[in-house]
Amino acid sequence: MTRVAILGSTGYTALELFKILAIHPEVEVVAATTRQEGSPPLSAIHPSLTGMFQLNCRNMTAEQVGQESDMVFCCLPHTASMEAVPQLLEADCRVVDLSADYRLNDPGVYEQWYHHVHTDPTRLQSAVYGLPELYRDVIGGADLVANPGCYTSASILALAPLVAENLIDCQGIIIDAKSGVSGAGRTPKLGNLFSECNESVTAYGIGTHRHTPEIEQVLANVGGMDVQVAFNPHLMPMDRGILCSVYPRLVEKRSQKELLDLYRTFYSGSPFVRVLDRIPRTKDVSGTNFCDITVCFNRDQLVIFSALDNLIRGASGVAVQNMNLMLGLDERMGMLPC
Amino acid sequence: MTRVAILGSTGYTALELFKILAIHPEVEVVAATTRQEGSPPLSAIHPSLTGMFQLNCRNMTAEQVGQESDMVFCCLPHTASMEAVPQLLEADCRVVDLSADYRLNDPGVYEQWYHHVHTDPTRLQSAVYGLPELYRDVIGGADLVANPGCYTSASILALAPLVAENLIDCQGIIIDAKSGVSGAGRTPKLGNLFSECNESVTAYGIGTHRHTPEIEQVLANVGGMDVQVAFNPHLMPMDRGILCSVYPRLVEKRSQKELLDLYRTFYSGSPFVRVLDRIPRTKDVSGTNFCDITVCFNRDQLVIFSALDNLIRGASGVAVQNMNLMLGLDERMGMLPC
Amino acid sequence: MTRVAILGSTGYTALELFKILAIHPEVEVVAATTRQEGSPPLSAIHPSLTGMFQLNCRNMTAEQVGQESDMVFCCLPHTASMEAVPQLLEADCRVVDLSADYRLNDPGVYEQWYHHVHTDPTRLQSAVYGLPELYRDVIGGADLVANPGCYTSASILALAPLVAENLIDCQGIIIDAKSGVSGAGRTPKLGNLFSECNESVTAYGIGTHRHTPEIEQVLANVGGMDVQVAFNPHLMPMDRGILCSVYPRLVEKRSQKELLDLYRTFYSGSPFVRVLDRIPRTKDVSGTNFCDITVCFNRDQLVIFSALDNLIRGASGVAVQNMNLMLGLDERMGMLPC
Amino acid sequence: MTRVAILGSTGYTALELFKILAIHPEVEVVAATTRQEGSPPLSAIHPSLTGMFQLNCRNMTAEQVGQESDMVFCCLPHTASMEAVPQLLEADCRVVDLSADYRLNDPGVYEQWYHHVHTDPTRLQSAVYGLPELYRDVIGGADLVANPGCYTSASILALAPLVAENLIDCQGIIIDAKSGVSGAGRTPKLGNLFSECNESVTAYGIGTHRHTPEIEQVLANVGGMDVQVAFNPHLMPMDRGILCSVYPRLVEKRSQKELLDLYRTFYSGSPFVRVLDRIPRTKDVSGTNFCDITVCFNRDQLVIFSALDNLIRGASGVAVQNMNLMLGLDERMGMLPC
Repeated sequence: MTRVAILGSTGYTALELFKILAIHPEVEVVAATTRQEGSPPLSAIHPSLTGMFQLNCRNMTAEQVGQESDMVFCCLPHTASMEAVPQLLEADCRVVDLSADYRLNDPGVYEQWYHHVHTDPTRLQSAVYGLPELYRDVIGGADLVANPGCYTSASILALAPLVAENLIDCQGIIIDAKSGVSGAGRTPKLGNLFSECNESVTAYGIGTHRHTPEIEQVLANVGGMDVQVAFNPHLMPMDRGILCSVYPRLVEKRSQKELLDLYRTFYSGSPFVRVLDRIPRTKDVSGTNFCDITVCFNRDQLVIFSALDNLIRGASGVAVQNMNLMLGLDERMGMLPC
Repeated sequence: MTRVAILGSTGYTALELFKILAIHPEVEVVAATTRQEGSPPLSAIHPSLTGMFQLNCRNMTAEQVGQESDMVFCCLPHTASMEAVPQLLEADCRVVDLSADYRLNDPGVYEQWYHHVHTDPTRLQSAVYGLPELYRDVIGGADLVANPGCYTSASILALAPLVAENLIDCQGIIIDAKSGVSGAGRTPKLGNLFSECNESVTAYGIGTHRHTPEIEQVLANVGGMDVQVAFNPHLMPMDRGILCSVYPRLVEKRSQKELLDLYRTFYSGSPFVRVLDRIPRTKDVSGTNFCDITVCFNRDQLVIFSALDNLIRGASGVAVQNMNLMLGLDERMGMLPC
Repeated sequence: MTRVAILGSTGYTALELFKILAIHPEVEVVAATTRQEGSPPLSAIHPSLTGMFQLNCRNMTAEQVGQESDMVFCCLPHTASMEAVPQLLEADCRVVDLSADYRLNDPGVYEQWYHHVHTDPTRLQSAVYGLPELYRDVIGGADLVANPGCYTSASILALAPLVAENLIDCQGIIIDAKSGVSGAGRTPKLGNLFSECNESVTAYGIGTHRHTPEIEQVLANVGGMDVQVAFNPHLMPMDRGILCSVYPRLVEKRSQKELLDLYRTFYSGSPFVRVLDRIPRTKDVSGTNFCDITVCFNRDQLVIFSALDNLIRGASGVAVQNMNLMLGLDERMGMLPC
Repeated sequence: MTRVAILGSTGYTALELFKILAIHPEVEVVAATTRQEGSPPLSAIHPSLTGMFQLNCRNMTAEQVGQESDMVFCCLPHTASMEAVPQLLEADCRVVDLSADYRLNDPGVYEQWYHHVHTDPTRLQSAVYGLPELYRDVIGGADLVANPGCYTSASILALAPLVAENLIDCQGIIIDAKSGVSGAGRTPKLGNLFSECNESVTAYGIGTHRHTPEIEQVLANVGGMDVQVAFNPHLMPMDRGILCSVYPRLVEKRSQKELLDLYRTFYSGSPFVRVLDRIPRTKDVSGTNFCDITVCFNRDQLVIFSALDNLIRGASGVAVQNMNLMLGLDERMGMLPC
């Protein structure tokens, strides 16, 4: 059994990790950290985990974590992650980092979008971007995997086959993204109150959302050319789920059938991507690590829809998928029959 | 007091009409129709109206309705409306028709999108399109006002100032529209069940939604040129509210400030359009006849957001606004202090 | 026009007051206070009020408020209210206090439940409890009306006719109350986040909820005997609405019909109480000042259901109803045709 | 691998069965039935199952089902079940019946509550009631297990320890039960539309809900005396989850601590019952087979809260738990680590 630790246990992504790992046959969660005083039992932080783990959340140093575990999921906020990760690697842990700290290759881009100087810039090049559908092979050998953002995964998976085949204009791709509220985290803020979000739809972060450079960097890598997206996130009155409606300009004529075939081929070895003949619903992927995708036309306008659970496929599910690959296990383990 | 009748009382738009008209100082609801047997009291159909009206819903002919009332709100489904409206006009009623039957000028376009031959085609030219912000003057003298669709109002109000000034490319305007479930009506269907819609977001009617030709026709009229939109409606897990995110291509450089000024000027005489400096939320217009609009940029991409309550500003509120104009009253009456 | 001020403008009850008063024909809101810096426009605090008021929220003393207004709605939190109210009365304002500070007659009971010594105890006896269905006559002449709690109104209106007629055992009345989240206020707290409340039902405050002594005091006053309730509040995943399911023990045999008749007689002069033959739904009273009530039997067990909108009938609507009575106006004004 | 069939595949409980069985290591779903024409693939009926089963839903006779499978989950509506079950048993299948048809021992009681003559009355005595916490031992050897109702499980688990110890008055126990909408099934009805249920709470079936005799029969069996409950179900605006608030009269004085100890002892061998020191939330059991319970006092009034997921612990999860026991497997298999 691989010994697993979770750094930063209080948020929703940590909660989902605990739930998935509870039934994973090849790993054991041996440590969970928090900055809260007094080593509270895990069930005090996440009541839904009562009776599932005999674990207290401790205020541990990275060195302590390293001594007790082989594989670490780092659920710290950005900037905190880049302080902990070097110590974890030093302690011979392998790390899946769920923050944004190791997703961008260029420390200048990081600074531009996160308004913070990167303190571990040399590792940005060696960290592997944890989107298995694109980087399955290198993830296996990585010590540090940068787990992708939730919107990012939905956007990239929607566009990668087209970008890889140079079928679309890579400038000005419009992404209209809709997310449930859990994507905003568990910190109390006025805008996340039930009475503010319920029965309401709005947009936010137009031109400033930090998943933008991540989408552009990965797609540029896929297509071998500069990519520029207009990413427009919206907040939906639901717990979980992301639907991306993507509007690119096709530069070569293709039928819907040809495009669906292209997608099916592209994702043929990817058990967690389902290419559908109908428009996906977030409900159908809720609680799963699936990303459902379809391609269709609105008269001449190409539209791609991708749906995923932001906490699972957008965070903790793909993190476990990455861990499976790092451990040489079937990537479906703990989430699908394999 | 103007005597008002409501044809087709069972749906959500009729319910909202009753609520607004209950406190309207210049009209009295004297008749309400239904095909249900036995003339049920209105409160049996809409429990929330208990104690507010002493009215039974009757199975009446258009002729009977005409004898009892001066002004009729026709809440029948499309194709039923085009049978009733001629008789109502014949009976000297003035009519606000909330169906789609008199919105399109061209019977061929109607047939193409509604798959039904229009049986009253000659009246399509004389019916006035009931969007007061564009057609305030002619609505006043009209006997038949075609009340606009919900998505349509949000889309047109978002785009009209730009189209009027020829500032955007009128081909391929992308509209990503999000609506609450009440827009789907009150007829039981699997897709509208709570357990199907809740915690779910999806798209539907891509390329086939019937509000498309309506948006294009009115904007073409505003701009004096052909307009073509890619209209993409989505279903949100909430009762009411529409947010349209509109992505046009600007053909002349303008700043956000210049565009907001343009919108403020364009809507300066329109009490129900609020041009905002921030992104609108559907919650802030819920239960009101307001349409909230803003304009912003995502890097170079122009984005317009418009929000309204689909049952009020998208149906029954604007219907009362139209009625007010037809009766020579302040258009705000019954909905805002005036 | 009566000049009205609102003290404490940022919460949900203040918002609802603004909305109702915007269309009230006999009053004008001339002042609104906040402790926020810089006198923000009202629309910055409540975006939904954009364009409806030309009013800035100011940091005012009670004396200043008194100079500018005749009638004050005090929406301050408890303990803050008892500091402001004496000054407002001193300044010749009449006050509807929406806090709990003047609801309980006995300062000892106040201290027991609110853990705070009452600093204005002498006024507890002269303040009038603002439940118009019970105290309509004295409210008219009052200078200080203590506006009832939301759960309290629903519970008292459900029980008053039975208590008045001595038909039930006044000890151990079980009240199972269900409320939407807006009742928890607008202050960011973990428990009120969308992602915590949505898709969840729970109970809270068992044995400690502060509406308990208020219910008991008023019902004791109605029945002329000691009353003791087991009040059990629950949190529902919705914005607004309270349903109380009340389980008393009948001490004299009565049929459902006899009891409905009793309720109809008891509330015959009360336009905002609707006695129904069916079980009320919170949706049917949402956005209104109605309290819907029915009485039925589950075999031998008497059950009373009462439903109201916690922000309107449970706070701001009844506050306006009280104001109307204090000003000698029709109590329905601004809320129902009259 | 045990060969499993699901009769009646279209509803929500069947969907949850498929999801649980997909990852169950000891069984394989080999057949699924529907009355729909044309043997649609399972993913056409339940889009969320796309890619998880290579199975078409067929219109099969009970005999055919019997030939292909060893264990059958019968998800047919009541009255349909009592026609299929005898044939399935005849074909040597073992059956977990999720309908109400074999839950009541007395055909007269069945007829009284279901308004239908029972056509297989002799089997009512031999069918085993599938609540493992009470009947674990006999379930193991049963060929026909009557899977309990959702409200029933929550109510019985809340009360069984008290009834077993004769600590409460078994007459007039008040149960105030709150359920999500999925409990109403997947058949389109006005009352289950999103726009009717959302933002609404109401009660229904007062005195007539069919889970009443089931609760009474099982508790009478536990306590060895007649039990009579006032069961009051309420509809909540959420997908899934039941919270029962139970108000019995204690006949012997006990402290909260003594009662919690009693519950912990009673359920010590039951991995799916969690006795808590705090009030349960439905969210914390959502998607699980747990039933969370606590006991507390509201002054003198004893209150028990029990929470479960109506589709899992209230239907398909406990059905799998029953199957596990019937197959001699660990009852947690497929749902908890074991």
